[in-house]
Amino acid sequence: MSSNGVRKVSLAVIKRLPKYHKCLGELLQNNVERISSQELGRLLGFTASQVRQDLNNFGEFGQQGYGYNVEQLYNEIAKILGLNVEHKVVIIGAGKLGQALAGYRDFEKHGFKILAMFDVDPKLVGSKVRDIPVYDVKDLIYYVNENEIDIAIIAVPRESAQEIADALSKTLIKGIWNFAPVEVDAGPDILVENVHLLDSLLTLSYRMNESKLMERLEKEN
Amino acid sequence: MSSNGVRKVSLAVIKRLPKYHKCLGELLQNNVERISSQELGRLLGFTASQVRQDLNNFGEFGQQGYGYNVEQLYNEIAKILGLNVEHKVVIIGAGKLGQALAGYRDFEKHGFKILAMFDVDPKLVGSKVRDIPVYDVKDLIYYVNENEIDIAIIAVPRESAQEIADALSKTLIKGIWNFAPVEVDAGPDILVENVHLLDSLLTLSYRMNESKLMERLEKEN
Repeated sequence: MSSNGVRKVSLAVIKRLPKYHKCLGELLQNNVERISSQELGRLLGFTASQVRQDLNNFGEFGQQGYGYNVEQLYNEIAKILGLNVEHKVVIIGAGKLGQALAGYRDFEKHGFKILAMFDVDPKLVGSKVRDIPVYDVKDLIYYVNENEIDIAIIAVPRESAQEIADALSKTLIKGIWNFAPVEVDAGPDILVENVHLLDSLLTLSYRMNESKLMERLEKEN
Repeated sequence: MSSNGVRKVSLAVIKRLPKYHKCLGELLQNNVERISSQELGRLLGFTASQVRQDLNNFGEFGQQGYGYNVEQLYNEIAKILGLNVEHKVVIIGAGKLGQALAGYRDFEKHGFKILAMFDVDPKLVGSKVRDIPVYDVKDLIYYVNENEIDIAIIAVPRESAQEIADALSKTLIKGIWNFAPVEVDAGPDILVENVHLLDSLLTLSYRMNESKLMERLEKEN
């Protein structure tokens, strides 16, 4: 066990891993075989020491004087992110947002295969989105267990989100990716990643407002 | 100027502000008049000292022995987030994602008014999404300047995103909220907030994989 303590990988490190993964994938496509922590840091906007620290959390990747083997590091990070296995995914909610997510090619490219969608609307049930069948939401629990689904994407209105999470809590699903603008809870065994779209818009709005705000604060203080 | 240095509000603090805003809004709806930093921290999952530190960045809000006035703090944070003025917004891309975003009621509730959408598809141009007209993307620059639009939401495929950002860089727009799965650049005067949907999914995947990973790392080390 490294002195960094592998059990305590911080959320900040985890959030940076997809960026490493993406950057290394691009390097690989450009046939780059190895890269130094300096250069990798430069591409990502991190310092070299940040890069070394981040990657040290997961064992010894780099070699002094050589740097990182791009392909090896890429594959290792993919494994860390759980991308070496295919994930079976369903989307609950076949409205505009569900359809938009179903059409997002990057998910499948990273091993997230969307097998089915679910909705309450009789006009949508029985239809297909791309090649993905839309089933009645009352068959959700049965389908998820029968097909060993890993991940459920919640793309229903706020009012129905917790109800869907409650249904999912009765399945063997491992993760929920929640797009409804409300936090949902599915018990201790299911991980939930809430997507806070409004927070991201408010962050933009704050940054747009910042210079005015700082002038005001300076005057007041 | 406070000793915290108002000019150096960290991104981490900024990212927490929408959570304060939301929580205080809910308290206000429940007629709560004042709240201590302890209690506010408990609701948000932060420590009391974190709450005091965060809010100190923006001046003196709380009063010793009294806590925070909920309404006053809510309004002040709304101002900090730039929510005291209405933002005029357009969406570029009237496909599934654009339509989903146009239907998101929470945006308008927070003062982000979507005035128009733009697309290249002649089947969409001239139609309406809810009450929002869809115009030809070739009229984008003219419309944005003429109507003093603040924020543009990019909801087009990856391939077209930078082209749209280039067009927007010729306007007086202040912020871009980019949903295309690629970073865009619109010059030094326009703030860009990229929404990395895939990163959020990969974070979930990592967390699902984490216990297995940590076992493996312990064996190796």
